[in-house]
Amino acid sequence: MKVGIVGGTGDIGEGIAMRLSSQHDVVIGSREADKAVHSSECCLSTLAGLGLPCSCSGVSNQEAIDRSDIIILAIPFRHVEPTLSTLNGFEDKIVISPVNPMEKRDYFVYTPPAEGSAALMIKRLLPPETRLCTAFNTVAANKWKALTEDLHLAVPVCGDDPAAKIRVMELIDSVSHVKSYDAGPLAASCMVECLTPLLLNIARFNRMRDVGIQFR
Amino acid sequence: MKVGIVGGTGDIGEGIAMRLSSQHDVVIGSREADKAVHSSECCLSTLAGLGLPCSCSGVSNQEAIDRSDIIILAIPFRHVEPTLSTLNGFEDKIVISPVNPMEKRDYFVYTPPAEGSAALMIKRLLPPETRLCTAFNTVAANKWKALTEDLHLAVPVCGDDPAAKIRVMELIDSVSHVKSYDAGPLAASCMVECLTPLLLNIARFNRMRDVGIQFR
Repeated sequence: MKVGIVGGTGDIGEGIAMRLSSQHDVVIGSREADKAVHSSECCLSTLAGLGLPCSCSGVSNQEAIDRSDIIILAIPFRHVEPTLSTLNGFEDKIVISPVNPMEKRDYFVYTPPAEGSAALMIKRLLPPETRLCTAFNTVAANKWKALTEDLHLAVPVCGDDPAAKIRVMELIDSVSHVKSYDAGPLAASCMVECLTPLLLNIARFNRMRDVGIQFR
Repeated sequence: MKVGIVGGTGDIGEGIAMRLSSQHDVVIGSREADKAVHSSECCLSTLAGLGLPCSCSGVSNQEAIDRSDIIILAIPFRHVEPTLSTLNGFEDKIVISPVNPMEKRDYFVYTPPAEGSAALMIKRLLPPETRLCTAFNTVAANKWKALTEDLHLAVPVCGDDPAAKIRVMELIDSVSHVKSYDAGPLAASCMVECLTPLLLNIARFNRMRDVGIQFR
């Protein structure tokens, strides 16, 4: 699978790129292609240092979309609308939203847009043929990046296209011991997105770091 | 600790009563005291059959409140307002809401009231001196009832009264291997309540049963 990461030079995008690029062709995208090239070089040298294979390149966000079958939108919620308005070519592609709209007050609060979730807002912004899934929301950037650490974590997936959902779940299951779970249709994404502020609160109020979940 | 369970003859109330009554004095409440007496007899004989101690009695909901230090509101969301309107004496008591407002459509949907969560609605309905916490939301009734099964599960707790929260967390930690986590103030309860429809969706779409969570 060829996986493009829009916003692949951010914290979470870089982490996902590192984890996926030893097994998949990863195309790191950025608004500035130079930064994406730098990230891909970092990724290549980090994985080489660990004796791992790595297939990874750095390009513009648009090129990351054009070259890939699966596209991960690794961008903060506030950048979603302006970023997507500059990009095209999503038709018939599998697009993954790991986006969690939230605010930090005395604690982290889930703050979905009027559509009810980031995923449903993104659905409105993309062409109707886009095969959109919610996934990769609940694993912290540091966990993705800790390449020598086994990840025994759950990743819930929402989506309305069964074949796309299966491919996304296979992609997730290819990473360490991460296990994907079908969490229902795209409209159920709010319940997945709001796990992230919950996990940040759990970390904060219990003096933990990079908390993830398991279902059992 | 003396623990009263309002709605203690329901599925989840009965399960919690069974788990707690081997270590704490449990007062099962019901609209009909006869039903509560029957539940407490079931509980006593079930625990005796397993060679476990049991301290448990059945009374009216009002008596369960009057006799207890900690009160668990084990009632479905739709019954909360009518039930609480018939009860009093909550002042200065620790009250636990395990209530999850949700609807079953093609999937389970979190449907909070105007206040933002069941907990915040309950706060409005109870006297201001009530020491309200959200807890016990995420463990299925069957898990509470499977007394010979070790429970390696997480229970997030929200609340604004630090001392009350500590007592609720101690109560939770007294059950099997269940581990309590501080999930922030009462206003953060929506993120805990909406775990339950998520877990029901995970169970349904992945052919699992009685799914709970762990943080790690």
